[in-house]
Amino acid sequence: MPPSRDFEEMWRDLAPVGRSASSGGYFRQPWASAETELRAWFAAECEARGLAVETDGIGNQVAWWSPESASGPGVLTGSHLDSVLDGGAYDGPLGVASALAAVDLLQARGFAPARPIGVSVFVEEEGSRFGRACLGSRLVTGATTWDQARELRDRDGVFLADAVADAGLDPEQGLLSLERVGTFVELHVEQGRDLVDRGVAVGLASEIWPHGRYRFDFAGQANHAGTTRMEDRHDPMLTYAMTALAANKQARLAGQRATFGRISVEPNGTNAVPSLVTAWLDARASSDDALAAMVALIEKQAEERAGRDGTSLVMTAESVSGSVAFDPDLAARLARLGDWPVIPTQAGHDAGILSDAGIPTAMVFVRNPTGVSHSPDEHAEMADCLAGVEALADVLEELAR
Amino acid sequence: MPPSRDFEEMWRDLAPVGRSASSGGYFRQPWASAETELRAWFAAECEARGLAVETDGIGNQVAWWSPESASGPGVLTGSHLDSVLDGGAYDGPLGVASALAAVDLLQARGFAPARPIGVSVFVEEEGSRFGRACLGSRLVTGATTWDQARELRDRDGVFLADAVADAGLDPEQGLLSLERVGTFVELHVEQGRDLVDRGVAVGLASEIWPHGRYRFDFAGQANHAGTTRMEDRHDPMLTYAMTALAANKQARLAGQRATFGRISVEPNGTNAVPSLVTAWLDARASSDDALAAMVALIEKQAEERAGRDGTSLVMTAESVSGSVAFDPDLAARLARLGDWPVIPTQAGHDAGILSDAGIPTAMVFVRNPTGVSHSPDEHAEMADCLAGVEALADVLEELAR
Repeated sequence: MPPSRDFEEMWRDLAPVGRSASSGGYFRQPWASAETELRAWFAAECEARGLAVETDGIGNQVAWWSPESASGPGVLTGSHLDSVLDGGAYDGPLGVASALAAVDLLQARGFAPARPIGVSVFVEEEGSRFGRACLGSRLVTGATTWDQARELRDRDGVFLADAVADAGLDPEQGLLSLERVGTFVELHVEQGRDLVDRGVAVGLASEIWPHGRYRFDFAGQANHAGTTRMEDRHDPMLTYAMTALAANKQARLAGQRATFGRISVEPNGTNAVPSLVTAWLDARASSDDALAAMVALIEKQAEERAGRDGTSLVMTAESVSGSVAFDPDLAARLARLGDWPVIPTQAGHDAGILSDAGIPTAMVFVRNPTGVSHSPDEHAEMADCLAGVEALADVLEELAR
Repeated sequence: MPPSRDFEEMWRDLAPVGRSASSGGYFRQPWASAETELRAWFAAECEARGLAVETDGIGNQVAWWSPESASGPGVLTGSHLDSVLDGGAYDGPLGVASALAAVDLLQARGFAPARPIGVSVFVEEEGSRFGRACLGSRLVTGATTWDQARELRDRDGVFLADAVADAGLDPEQGLLSLERVGTFVELHVEQGRDLVDRGVAVGLASEIWPHGRYRFDFAGQANHAGTTRMEDRHDPMLTYAMTALAANKQARLAGQRATFGRISVEPNGTNAVPSLVTAWLDARASSDDALAAMVALIEKQAEERAGRDGTSLVMTAESVSGSVAFDPDLAARLARLGDWPVIPTQAGHDAGILSDAGIPTAMVFVRNPTGVSHSPDEHAEMADCLAGVEALADVLEELAR
């Protein structure tokens, strides 16, 4: 069976899982039904290839192809199967299906690896449920401890520890070991338009921009929307609105990224001036200093406006990740395999967490014709996906020779 | 037993019902547990006074005091027991408890009414659950029909018809009849600072400003908050933010009121540019023309900004109520009883619906020391509440002589 057909089959199997009939987007939140189904799908795909699957105590998965020719530290490749709320089909699953297809392709080529090759899935990469991106890989590398994580709550107030237990998992059973991992490679759909602008299907990552999530709590005074004179109000919605516009302006001026995409309002009634507006800033910049400077400027403008509105602001950095430079020698060596460009990304990935943990790491990007991601409109052409599988197979062959 | 004690006792009984331990505010949404408890409380209070309670098919309640001396069209007084989300103790219940206490006071005075005196409670006055303010009185007057209302949904998608049935009510049993009602009087805590500025405890209403609720659907394109270049975005949050600021500015310039206090965002994820922001404008003005002009200006500014953001806007007027002028002769006649000022209000009330239906109607306002309403901070001093009971008794005596 030609490997390209394997990939397309897998892709058709994945298409309906967790898909919203109304938007066409995906809701694959971790430790919930769609993601549990995907975990079973991955295990079945590995078993169909004769690879034994190990699922760790929080749902991370790995399966090693380790024929007699292989020994020593292995090459791990994979991505994640969870999605943002109403996300696209490619962000995550493309890297998992491509990893399986690349192993198929290497076997079809008759390649006898000198290193074991593993295929992996990390859990809760998006942080869409518990607010911590790359939670699975952070726990595996020790960047976050289970004691820090277990008390996290989702939007319904469910503790992480309970969500994991409800999914039939037990963190006491231990986490995936990285001892066997000599190199990590993550294939991912590009989430910008660098490759489409360059006219190439595949690229490699140079670095991940520093990024952070910051919670802004704007507090005011609830009041009647009809009877309260405009000059008597302490309306935190106004402070928020100006801050959202300021964040956009500062990011544009600085050539960086700043977004308010999530908000929660109390009491959120049409005829009530709100008492509290909580909003989350997602900020990314080309250097740690540029990120800190931009966030400080946004906070300063928010504080000034709060003074004028008679409201107050508390800003909390919920997570801040410094820049990640992927192993430059590794990127240069792999780029020569296909004359692929080496480009930065503004998106966080498990690859960044593993790189930070000292594991030589590379990323393969597949062209995205619109650059749209975290959206039902996210897309990659099938020909580009198959080019990605070929590229990943070439990378694995180079690393496992 | 002195009637003032009755009022204070009733007030203590009401205090814990539907109260949030964290905010101190009230969650008394219609056809849910707290409001059902309040309906039972009202029935028990009426029965303790020997008044037969009639509860209609959607939960409106009325009890008539109709001794042998009384005949002809009656005088109805009352208010509502539901609250906005996280609302205050006084908005609604003050008018109901005062109505009961005023009847007590008239009986203590040995007053023999020539007209029946009724005490009433209308359901879903705030529109906090199904988005239609004064729903109970609108249904009773025919301003809204049951066929129009039954398909309304609350935030959880529950149909009004199902919520009413779940509360053990049956609209087929008929609605409260207004045939016996010659005059309606609603006592209410003031929701502004007119009386406190004038230094008086009690006032009467001249008119209700026109007001409306308008839903703004800002549509854009979901995308990755990190990787999407600022210039490639179609971010509806920005269009919304500018619109919220514009609404505030237009209301201030025109001396009117405009508020965005409720918002819903899709997908509402920290790392996603939203696809859709829905926000509700509450607008009120001193004339129908001024309201229309202000809303048109806000919509125009929103449209212009949508053009710049590459987003789109659909504005839907969910409810618009014209100005209500209460019977001026009635107000003048009642004002002479206590040399009370006659002042306008920007808040909608069931009294406005009954006035629109052709029933001579008056409102009695009780001083609010801060003007704050629709908030846990809403307050009235007990001495002013008791002055309100006295004033209402005087008004009922004048009307039922």
